[in-house]
Amino acid sequence: MPKKVLVDISVEPIGTSSTSLSPYIKKVFDVLDRLGIKYYPSPSMTTLELDDITKLGYILKEINDELERMGVKRIVALIKIDDRRDKENSIEHKLEVIKR
Amino acid sequence: MPKKVLVDISVEPIGTSSTSLSPYIKKVFDVLDRLGIKYYPSPSMTTLELDDITKLGYILKEINDELERMGVKRIVALIKIDDRRDKENSIEHKLEVIKR
Amino acid sequence: MPKKVLVDISVEPIGTSSTSLSPYIKKVFDVLDRLGIKYYPSPSMTTLELDDITKLGYILKEINDELERMGVKRIVALIKIDDRRDKENSIEHKLEVIKR
Amino acid sequence: MPKKVLVDISVEPIGTSSTSLSPYIKKVFDVLDRLGIKYYPSPSMTTLELDDITKLGYILKEINDELERMGVKRIVALIKIDDRRDKENSIEHKLEVIKR
Repeated sequence: MPKKVLVDISVEPIGTSSTSLSPYIKKVFDVLDRLGIKYYPSPSMTTLELDDITKLGYILKEINDELERMGVKRIVALIKIDDRRDKENSIEHKLEVIKR
Repeated sequence: MPKKVLVDISVEPIGTSSTSLSPYIKKVFDVLDRLGIKYYPSPSMTTLELDDITKLGYILKEINDELERMGVKRIVALIKIDDRRDKENSIEHKLEVIKR
Repeated sequence: MPKKVLVDISVEPIGTSSTSLSPYIKKVFDVLDRLGIKYYPSPSMTTLELDDITKLGYILKEINDELERMGVKRIVALIKIDDRRDKENSIEHKLEVIKR
Repeated sequence: MPKKVLVDISVEPIGTSSTSLSPYIKKVFDVLDRLGIKYYPSPSMTTLELDDITKLGYILKEINDELERMGVKRIVALIKIDDRRDKENSIEHKLEVIKR
């Protein structure tokens, strides 16, 4: 049975005239909400919990299309994927690991 | 018309007993060859030139499935995406930019 | 006046025989505590708030030396730096931005 | 004896009005040349070969200070570190691994 994949994403719009990233970050959250994807925002990156990694490209296209509609002409995205094949992974598990 | 997207990828197998990454890197190249994807290997990451970003998740699944067949039980992948909406991007263009 | 720099870090030990990352993550927290560095753990990466970016290499060396003492022979670290020159940045500000 | 550390870097200027990254990439090369650091540019990131990882923060500060002089008010940098403790690493070794 396929297991969940955790995907951290961060988008950096290039060539906007403002140094503020907040409106773009909020737009990313809107897209994830619309697509019904479970996610956990953090200061560094946003963690997505995907049932199926093959959806990732489609999600990124939806995000970047929305950013383009906001006027962004170049988007650099940083992504970190954690694909465990030995046991089920989840945002909850990761939160447990970092609990101090 | 949709434009090409450049995607840099790097995979880190976790929990193998060896510090060598070479066999896994060669396997990634094999998968990319089999899928007919244009790519440029470099010491840091491998740059893929994709016609369509929606394919990315499928490509990653193919890579990780092959690594699992090699015995890897957890794969961390680092990905950087460069999605220009203002003009066509390409590996050749990027190589031109870094020419000294 | 120099401004704070936010640095997200994630370490991936290569060549350990276990897929578990928890003990290494906890060790990173221990090092940061010992060095007196302000940080915020999240599922994706740990965000450090540094007064001075020139300290970063020293911090990474301390972390990797400790991981080597745990038996790790190769460490891949992923780092994202946010260096604002126009206004003061902070973990608190970033938490405010992602508040839903 | 301390071993060399390979550090891949990529800088993304935020809030410039242009989508072109070339002038900033060339400036990074200029700084690395001035500091006498061995590096290998590639389409994805630039690989630095450092004798001592503790220098990294200082190098990043030099780069970001130069970018600020060019008018950049916020710099996001992506960095991947490969710190082997079992054997000597080098740009030449990595180039050998990716040879097709």
